[in-house]
Amino acid sequence: MSNAIFYHAGCPVCLGAEQLLVNALDHAKYQLEVVHLGEQPTRINEADAAGVKSVPAVVIDGQVFHINFGAALADLKS
Amino acid sequence: MSNAIFYHAGCPVCLGAEQLLVNALDHAKYQLEVVHLGEQPTRINEADAAGVKSVPAVVIDGQVFHINFGAALADLKS
Repeated sequence: MSNAIFYHAGCPVCLGAEQLLVNALDHAKYQLEVVHLGEQPTRINEADAAGVKSVPAVVIDGQVFHINFGAALADLKS
Repeated sequence: MSNAIFYHAGCPVCLGAEQLLVNALDHAKYQLEVVHLGEQPTRINEADAAGVKSVPAVVIDGQVFHINFGAALADLKS
């Protein structure tokens, strides 16, 4: 079982991407953790270190995939 | 069974996204079709009509998800 961490900020674009992952991810292979960076700002640095530049994004097996564009990570820091 | 259509242009960013989908998509729910727009330029209009602005992108249940950025669709037309 691998981890998939989905970072978002509650934006409409984020919700669409979250729905995609909840519906389409193979849950037999991946455990999905959903992190709302607005509610958990202490995890912004973790997302940054993983290579997340904008949300929504999902980190799977150490690889970052930005899905569409909701907000820049830099804008969540301020 | 729903269809997931992945549009790409053979770029390195595209290959990473393709690997994600091949590995992580729930194949019990989604049938994945992979379309290389460089090899199948006749399908560029179809991708355009679906709302694809850049590749790699996947269209699932009529929704477009752009995954990272490889190339603009407009650049594939020329």
